[in-house]
Order: sequence, then C-alpha cells, then structure tokens
Amino acid sequence: MFSPLTQQLIEDLCCLPGVGKKTAQRMAFTLLSQNKRSHGTKLGNTLLAAMENIGFCQSCQTYSEKSQCDLCLNAKRNNQLLCVVETPADIVAIEQTHRFQGLYFVLHGHLSPLDGIGPQELGIPLLIERIKNGNITEIILASNPTMEGKATAHYIASQLDRNRVSISRIAFGVPLGGEIEYLDGHTLGHAFDSRQPFTENNPL
Amino acid sequence: MFSPLTQQLIEDLCCLPGVGKKTAQRMAFTLLSQNKRSHGTKLGNTLLAAMENIGFCQSCQTYSEKSQCDLCLNAKRNNQLLCVVETPADIVAIEQTHRFQGLYFVLHGHLSPLDGIGPQELGIPLLIERIKNGNITEIILASNPTMEGKATAHYIASQLDRNRVSISRIAFGVPLGGEIEYLDGHTLGHAFDSRQPFTENNPL
Repeated sequence: MFSPLTQQLIEDLCCLPGVGKKTAQRMAFTLLSQNKRSHGTKLGNTLLAAMENIGFCQSCQTYSEKSQCDLCLNAKRNNQLLCVVETPADIVAIEQTHRFQGLYFVLHGHLSPLDGIGPQELGIPLLIERIKNGNITEIILASNPTMEGKATAHYIASQLDRNRVSISRIAFGVPLGGEIEYLDGHTLGHAFDSRQPFTENNPL
Repeated sequence: MFSPLTQQLIEDLCCLPGVGKKTAQRMAFTLLSQNKRSHGTKLGNTLLAAMENIGFCQSCQTYSEKSQCDLCLNAKRNNQLLCVVETPADIVAIEQTHRFQGLYFVLHGHLSPLDGIGPQELGIPLLIERIKNGNITEIILASNPTMEGKATAHYIASQLDRNRVSISRIAFGVPLGGEIEYLDGHTLGHAFDSRQPFTENNPL
C-alpha cells in the first residue's frame, strides 16, 4: 500500500514514545507534503547530530554535548546545595518552580536489582565522591515517591556521613489545589503521618 | 536548562503533527536514553533518505521513490476503474475495505483558489489526460464531503466527457453502526435527500 521507503519511515517513527502506527502514518505524510520536506530533513540531521554528540555532563550526568553542562558551569548557582533526581526531565520541572538555586545530580533511573541496575549503573560512586570532595553542605533527595525511588534515596543517604552534610527529602503530601475528598488513600495517609506543627506563619 | 543540541532536538521534533513542547521533550529524552540511541540514529537516516528520495508516482501522484508506484504497476488491478482521492492516506483507508480493485489518482488536496491552489496544482490536467488516453470506463470521485471537496469533484466532472466515461461519487449518509438519534443534522438531511428505492436485496 505504501512504497518501501514510506513504510520504513512509518515503522521508524513508531520508535517515538506514544506514537503508534496511525500517528506515525500521519507524521510521515505530513513530513512528505511538499512544504514540510525541509522540516523533515532538518529533523533528520538534528537527530543524527544529537544521537552522535550528546553525552553526559561529567559533574551531574545530565545530557550534554560538552564535558560539563551549562548549569554546572553557572557560577551564580549555589554549589553548596545538591539535588539528586532520577531524570533530566525532573530538572526541568524543578527549575520551573524557581525555588532551587543549587546544583543537580541525575541518576538516570533508580535502583532496580532485578533489572541489573545497581549503584554503579546510576553513577552513585561518582555522586559520593563529588560530595566528599566538594563543599556541599546539603543533599536534597528528590527521587520519585515510589518503592524504587524510596530505596534509592535510602541507599544514597546510607553512603553519606551525616556529620558532614545534612540530608533532606522533598515533602510528599496533599498537592496544592488538590481536593482532599478525591485524593488517593496512600497520599492522604502519608499526609497524616507526616503532619507538621501548626504555626501562624504556615502559608497554607 | 537543556544543552543547545538537546534544545534543538526538542524544537525540531515539534515540527511533527500533534507534537507540542512537552511531548517533544519526552521524545528527545527517550531517544537519548542509552538503549534507544540506535533507534534515533535509524530514524534520522530514514528521514534523510525519505525526504531526499520519495517523489510522486507519474501515474497516480501518490508518494513513491520509484517513477511508478507498486499499485499502479500491479497487473491484477482493474485498470478500467479510477478512484480520485484527496490524500495518500485516503488510499490506505479505501484499500482496507477490500471493496475497490481499481487504480487511484491522488490530488494532494482540493481546489482552494484563495490559497492559490487551482487545477494545475492538483495535477488535474494530468488526470484528464490519463482518462482520455487510457481505457478507463468509470471514475469514482472520493474527495471529502466538504465544500472544497464537493467543488473539486464538480470541477473534475465538468472536464470529462460523460459519453466516454461514467462518473460516480461515493455515497454519503448515515454511517453503518451509527445511531440516527445522535447524528448531526447535515448528514441526516443529506441521508433523506439521497434516499434510495427500497428493495428486498438492500442489505441494510
């Protein structure tokens, strides 16, 4: 029904997350339409350059085509604070809050022994080394509130000397704007277990 | 927040239909993750090859990297029947019905004088030429049931000699499995205007 090369293009577009056969077909036809060909060529070239040249920042392990990423090189960031996240996308989400001015460390996943993902695969020895040799005073563990994320946070904390750095975990509970009535039981249970002393200054 | 090349990749992925910034970011991070790099490179190479080599079939104007597409070259197809469609995706939809064994002609759009799209841009002279010189006996006009699709069908019909070829338009009306109660008024009105004599053989 399609020419072999069109078929190949549709199949290869299916490697994109959330793209099935029908969406891939629509993408292929859009790119092939005459006024979009240049976009397709541009995307093709960028993909090849990106897959070839983007590596990992030596300091924080995020994606970067340079040996150190712009964020790690930025002298305005507070290099005493280090936030540990699971993915580069987490950095984006945190940066958008404008609440954190420190540096990051990206694990690219979480501990998962059954999948063969141990501390070495996540670069945790590099993280420990960096904390020991740097002037970091606080580690904020921002791995996800899942079993694996929790285990990863616990493991990292166990490897650190609490006398030298303070270790914190981001707060979990009722999301702002959320309605308690509709919240799942796990989150609400956690919100009760982790209740904070009420003060006049509490903003919520 | 992203390295320049990562940013470029995200922006270029946004050229895909239905892909916004957030989806593009997710796609970029997926492709950059270590076990997906080869997919990204493969997609990049296929995109470049496709944008460079896929042209149009000389006979039916569908996308093809050869001068004639496999469907036009298929000797098993009935070359007396020609179905005119707006896009190559329409061919896919029609082929899936297994009801049409003839050949196609793809307009790549519809008449739209305000956008500078006239008969020449759609290849209608080529279509007329093909009908005059071939052994085609029936033309099925399958442009969309829109104002533009209708105008395009009318224009093509006006250019043909009805004594030499019969011209038909696909049927429009209540879709099978649809509930009349919930159908839009335009379609239902058309279904009444286009009512067919009731026969015992009518399958519905």
